[in-house]
Amino acid sequence: MLSQRIKTLMPYVPGEQPRDRRYIKLNTNENPYQPSPRIRDFLRTFDPETLRRYPDPRMTALRQAIGRRFGLSDDCVFTGNGSDEVLAFAFYAFFDSDCGPVLFPTFTYSFYPVYCNFFDIDYRTLPLGGDYTVDLDAFAVAGKSCGAIFPNPNAPTGIGLPLDRVRSLLERFPRDRVVIVDEAYIDFGGQSAASLIDSYNNLLVVQTFSKSMALAGIRLGFAMGAKPLIDALFTAKDAFNSYPVDTLAQQIGVLAMEDRDHFDEICRKIVATRERFGETMTGLGWRLLPSQANFVFASKPGVPGSQIYNDLKAAGILVRYFDKEGLRDFVRITMGTDEEMDTLVEAIQRLFG
Amino acid sequence: MLSQRIKTLMPYVPGEQPRDRRYIKLNTNENPYQPSPRIRDFLRTFDPETLRRYPDPRMTALRQAIGRRFGLSDDCVFTGNGSDEVLAFAFYAFFDSDCGPVLFPTFTYSFYPVYCNFFDIDYRTLPLGGDYTVDLDAFAVAGKSCGAIFPNPNAPTGIGLPLDRVRSLLERFPRDRVVIVDEAYIDFGGQSAASLIDSYNNLLVVQTFSKSMALAGIRLGFAMGAKPLIDALFTAKDAFNSYPVDTLAQQIGVLAMEDRDHFDEICRKIVATRERFGETMTGLGWRLLPSQANFVFASKPGVPGSQIYNDLKAAGILVRYFDKEGLRDFVRITMGTDEEMDTLVEAIQRLFG
Repeated sequence: MLSQRIKTLMPYVPGEQPRDRRYIKLNTNENPYQPSPRIRDFLRTFDPETLRRYPDPRMTALRQAIGRRFGLSDDCVFTGNGSDEVLAFAFYAFFDSDCGPVLFPTFTYSFYPVYCNFFDIDYRTLPLGGDYTVDLDAFAVAGKSCGAIFPNPNAPTGIGLPLDRVRSLLERFPRDRVVIVDEAYIDFGGQSAASLIDSYNNLLVVQTFSKSMALAGIRLGFAMGAKPLIDALFTAKDAFNSYPVDTLAQQIGVLAMEDRDHFDEICRKIVATRERFGETMTGLGWRLLPSQANFVFASKPGVPGSQIYNDLKAAGILVRYFDKEGLRDFVRITMGTDEEMDTLVEAIQRLFG
Repeated sequence: MLSQRIKTLMPYVPGEQPRDRRYIKLNTNENPYQPSPRIRDFLRTFDPETLRRYPDPRMTALRQAIGRRFGLSDDCVFTGNGSDEVLAFAFYAFFDSDCGPVLFPTFTYSFYPVYCNFFDIDYRTLPLGGDYTVDLDAFAVAGKSCGAIFPNPNAPTGIGLPLDRVRSLLERFPRDRVVIVDEAYIDFGGQSAASLIDSYNNLLVVQTFSKSMALAGIRLGFAMGAKPLIDALFTAKDAFNSYPVDTLAQQIGVLAMEDRDHFDEICRKIVATRERFGETMTGLGWRLLPSQANFVFASKPGVPGSQIYNDLKAAGILVRYFDKEGLRDFVRITMGTDEEMDTLVEAIQRLFG
């Protein structure tokens, strides 16, 4: 009854989304602060009569707002139903096995191999450096491939790469193969590669409204790159779902993109919390990888990550554990409010000394 | 730079969505009436703070609301980002070329061959009967296939099939191959096959909020079928985009599904307009195929469809023309308000006598 491909498909497993609101939820890198207050005013006066019409299939106003922010023409911007959908279209449009595997780091966003599985694309993983940094030199010398993708900062480590390292890779990578920089977490201290788009027509930069914009619930992601790459994403979109971003999401996205004050404020608060939390945890004998994201990858010598995860969950705090060789010492902890992090620190002291 | 598959991909071309509001827009089968008034109240009091969280990836409350309406367990309901996305996942999950082509009518929703192209699935089209009816007998005797899909009512003809014809096909079709009934337009006088789901575990019924619910702008579609089919759609979804339906859309969908009075009223009005418009047009010498949809497929002897389309567009009225052998005599006209249809009739009398 089912297709051959679905029988062997291993789906991505997202972090738990319990409906039980009693948990302190630090497991899926959501923002602890509310999105732009302009959204409340917008929804109060929005006329639902417009919902009887299809949304703009070109998502023009939203792409223009993003373009204005990054100094790009809207021809160089694509938007989709979350950056997961944008990435799915990008894997489809740019990577196939005819010219070699797609390259990505061994430890990275675990959706990448799932897209490869979904679209039957070969992949090859490249080990991180000894300090858990993404080793872009390894990408540059990897040889035959159909392209590359890596997050900056990487997940689940949180470690960022300086812009000159990304530029150096682009200088050395084949110009006829696409390099995707997945910048879901770039706004918490990283340097975006968006400024390199004019110089490298094989560069695609992907970002999301889910983290720094506090809009995970609205499902908005975007890609920036040279027009031929953006055109290819539109072709993929138009062969899958003509209208991936609904009317409300398009308009809310514009409001959020234009409210820079609110954005700057909540990003600043999250970075401050991360620094404060990091110092506290280091003082308690934990090891934290250096993070430029809204989460930290943390371990406590002698305590397995699974135990940390389970004990914290029993104490009403959700963090994320990855049951994968090389990551089992760690848990990934999303930055909540300072108050939530204080509660976490108390639980950690109580549970793990 | 691009994958082989994207280079040969021919995307679906949706009807025009001009931002120019001066057109009377009768080209994309949108609803001329507003969606449930409950949505306005909901948006006025909605707390945007919840948007910082991811939506429910299982879309539980929405699936339960649909299940209640159709007397099905929510295990038998899948929801997605418009029925186009639901159909895309269904093509992926149920159809592959290993066991033969997927069957669909020659003249039908033109996204079906695009999905086949997208996922590299063979297809075979079966001609309509002489009266433009979908010929389900031809499906039953077609031989080797990986499954079948047809709309009921069909697009762009608007012709519906009685439930006993659908049941008869299911009796004769291989039980290990999925049959999808695409019921985007079922609520304007057709008989849904949802009542057959308990009897045929290879039946998938797909519907949408875009037409009868007046919510094209919110992007919501759903599928109903036996649990193994629904599970397969979830597997496909979870390998593509974990959270395809945003928080607002999930909640708006529940409200619309539960407001039966409003739904019944606007469907009744559209059907009445269609009957009234049909009589008028027949009186003017037009040929209208018998429609159970919110549109009619209409031709005027001696006037090419392209001319009807162009002349009406110049007069500020958008209808849809299909530049395809066998369909070039016709235009597809969406039912607007009675007032809009009166304006159309005046233009038609003026332009075509």
